[in-house]
Amino acid sequence: MPIHITDPADPRLDDFRDLTTADRRPDRPGGRGLVIAEGTVVVRRLIASAYPVRALLGVRGRFDELAPDLSDLEAPFYVASADLMARVVGFHLNRGVLATADRIAFPPTAQLLDSVRSVAVLEGVGDHENLGSIFRNAAALGIGAVLLGEGCADPLYRRSVRVSMGTVLLVPFAGLSGSWPAPAELLRSKGFTVTALTPKPSAVTLRQAGLAGRKVAVLLGSEGPGLTDAALESADLQVRIPMAPGVDSLNVATAGAIAFAEIATG
Amino acid sequence: MPIHITDPADPRLDDFRDLTTADRRPDRPGGRGLVIAEGTVVVRRLIASAYPVRALLGVRGRFDELAPDLSDLEAPFYVASADLMARVVGFHLNRGVLATADRIAFPPTAQLLDSVRSVAVLEGVGDHENLGSIFRNAAALGIGAVLLGEGCADPLYRRSVRVSMGTVLLVPFAGLSGSWPAPAELLRSKGFTVTALTPKPSAVTLRQAGLAGRKVAVLLGSEGPGLTDAALESADLQVRIPMAPGVDSLNVATAGAIAFAEIATG
Repeated sequence: MPIHITDPADPRLDDFRDLTTADRRPDRPGGRGLVIAEGTVVVRRLIASAYPVRALLGVRGRFDELAPDLSDLEAPFYVASADLMARVVGFHLNRGVLATADRIAFPPTAQLLDSVRSVAVLEGVGDHENLGSIFRNAAALGIGAVLLGEGCADPLYRRSVRVSMGTVLLVPFAGLSGSWPAPAELLRSKGFTVTALTPKPSAVTLRQAGLAGRKVAVLLGSEGPGLTDAALESADLQVRIPMAPGVDSLNVATAGAIAFAEIATG
Repeated sequence: MPIHITDPADPRLDDFRDLTTADRRPDRPGGRGLVIAEGTVVVRRLIASAYPVRALLGVRGRFDELAPDLSDLEAPFYVASADLMARVVGFHLNRGVLATADRIAFPPTAQLLDSVRSVAVLEGVGDHENLGSIFRNAAALGIGAVLLGEGCADPLYRRSVRVSMGTVLLVPFAGLSGSWPAPAELLRSKGFTVTALTPKPSAVTLRQAGLAGRKVAVLLGSEGPGLTDAALESADLQVRIPMAPGVDSLNVATAGAIAFAEIATG
């Protein structure tokens, strides 16, 4: 049953307060480390995920839309006007519904690698939108897990969750510990071919690499600088996507998607 | 030589005035139909393109950066303070430089198709960012031209130009005239295999389609509804990208990039 809220100061709405500031960077001091889902698609995915939902806040129409998904959920659904929601949250919510959840711990990296056949390994992906897009592509193209190396943003930041269409809540991820080549050695010990994606002309093309049927770890660097030399040198293979002359490299999420598709269909 | 401007009302800056409003939609009444390039990367690409540059406006540092590119250019470069630029343009420009150009006419579609081996055909891509990303991917992956069907946004809108990294200025494009199946018949008469990208399970996979070495037209629909039935039925082939179960389709620009890469390396 929905709980109707008419007072914007109601403490039950504290999870949702001032999202533009306090919760902007849950990984930073002042953030609360909550997972925030926006919109019915993402909220539905949150409910279906392993993350424990704390509370939902939405306009009546969104409650009605989500009602079939709420039957097994213990978390309260607060219904309020769009106006009251905007005052609490700090901006007008086009999507009309929010949910919060606590973070969860995934299994340690080594254990995670035992359960998947492909993994994306990111280095320096500090842009929340690129990170969200990489998760969306990984989920769609069947990549089993994402490992986050140095300089990566928090995938559970609100904007990443939104851009990923909530798929960051589906694809397991873990931090990459130790410096190169240690992570590559761990991946190799688990049977992965460590494959660095790079625009370098000396790299073999994705097609020549023959990744079909292998367990593959795809290393992706940040747009601009790309992978560090240490990462490139730790890889078993350096592969490139053939590009037209004179054009900048692709967006990191797009390049990753092309590699993921090659692994999936290879 | 740079021309120093100190009066924000100087009529020589009229091309750059109130970009957030008047020039927001050059395809709409009140817009001036100019091409606007922002930032050194995109401005450099504009200068190298077929579009006739009208004027440039930037801070001194950007003029110095671009000086080597300006030698054959007759258009004036106005140098102003960041503050004056913000007052003229209507917002603070992170990128510090703008250029305007007139639009140009490309050859008619039939003639354009004689000069390329691959083409992206878009239907209902009304989102300027998706459109810009599609051009960026087309340029990087060697797609020869883009054809714009019904419901497509203007690729020369400022945001599309920016998201494309200026590649909309490099890849020829044309409108698609007539309704299906006429455009497909034109494409076939020019030797193209008309290939519709769709998530339908009945479609063959991109890999099974065996597009290697063929002249291919890739039909891409809008996110959400996808291609119209008329477009799907007009195609020679319906192809899909294999997806993990339970996940929404990919972003249209990303799906397109996977198809473009398949054609390029196939």
